[in-house]
Amino acid sequence: MVGDTEPGTVRPGGRTARVRAAVLQAAGDALAEGGFAGLDLADVARRADVGKTTVYRRWGTVTGLVADLLTDMAEQSLPRTETGSLLGDLKANAQLVRRTLADDRQGALFKAVIAAATCERRTAEALRRFYETRVAEWAPCVERAVERGEVPEGTDPHEVVRAVSAPLYYRLLTTGDHPDEAAADRAAEAAVAAAKAGAYVRREGGPHQEDPA
Amino acid sequence: MVGDTEPGTVRPGGRTARVRAAVLQAAGDALAEGGFAGLDLADVARRADVGKTTVYRRWGTVTGLVADLLTDMAEQSLPRTETGSLLGDLKANAQLVRRTLADDRQGALFKAVIAAATCERRTAEALRRFYETRVAEWAPCVERAVERGEVPEGTDPHEVVRAVSAPLYYRLLTTGDHPDEAAADRAAEAAVAAAKAGAYVRREGGPHQEDPA
Repeated sequence: MVGDTEPGTVRPGGRTARVRAAVLQAAGDALAEGGFAGLDLADVARRADVGKTTVYRRWGTVTGLVADLLTDMAEQSLPRTETGSLLGDLKANAQLVRRTLADDRQGALFKAVIAAATCERRTAEALRRFYETRVAEWAPCVERAVERGEVPEGTDPHEVVRAVSAPLYYRLLTTGDHPDEAAADRAAEAAVAAAKAGAYVRREGGPHQEDPA
Repeated sequence: MVGDTEPGTVRPGGRTARVRAAVLQAAGDALAEGGFAGLDLADVARRADVGKTTVYRRWGTVTGLVADLLTDMAEQSLPRTETGSLLGDLKANAQLVRRTLADDRQGALFKAVIAAATCERRTAEALRRFYETRVAEWAPCVERAVERGEVPEGTDPHEVVRAVSAPLYYRLLTTGDHPDEAAADRAAEAAVAAAKAGAYVRREGGPHQEDPA
């Protein structure tokens, strides 16, 4: 955890961590309320009750702050549920995505960050890393299902996990509707049915090859 | 087509239509280049070589202009392909979505409009209508497949069509990657497999009930 930081500059649970937590909470609140365009480091510092200079020195820019917020969100992301069946696991995942998107603050925050990522390269990279982390957290559910013989050998776990989230995000972004519980269950059921039918088996030259590790 | 417009104010193919076509083309170009935040009626008028007053009088606001652009895009949307099989039809649909999102101008335009819809109610409504029109255009492919017995009775055609687009948009918006041909085919294959397994059969109290008409 310390690695390449100077000794003494990071004290987990200490002042640095408390300042970061307060600033990221304030940044999330501000994003959810006013979107990316309204985000302002001085306003975030005021909301967090932290000195402006600290915020400018540590995060530098609004995009730097959003990137760090996404890193934190990925780290905080709840661990996966293991229910013993692929359908059970993916339903748990789908309901977690649904609850996040349905939550007033979290839903608005995701919309704001996705909107910003369409025109901000650094935010786009941070968002991509967020989803990579999240998808990697849930991929072992699919690996276990391959081992159990529930889905064919060669099924791409990342594609299956993404298939669960896709219809929920698509619905939110194209219609503004918050997906309901039935939609979340259906997303999981559709992903499992497609996986069982071999739709996510990796093809020669397919787009996603997992690391051999 | 004339309906509730004043006689003589709309002459299809006439000056009004030419002005609209030029202004919407310019609006799409401007959106693709600079996003929603950079959209400006005076700039659009200049690009379209149309008087500023005409643009302000006819479209009023940037959101009004984007709403009309989306209406036009829905009207211009290509008719569906009928190949005789659900998989063939949905692959054609998926490749059409892929080509649109992969096109520099169209892809940037969709990203800009989706981003704007996250914080602009009128744009969100126009976007929702755009996708309703597009989904309704392709729904008959699924209705034919139900008649042919390819997928179960009670399958929701709109859900199946949305399931094809969802992973392609999700990929673009969360990773910035343009989905490739293999991803488009896979989206169609997954939707068909899930539909065959009954994942899109309407449930009691389900979210989408088609009009009895």
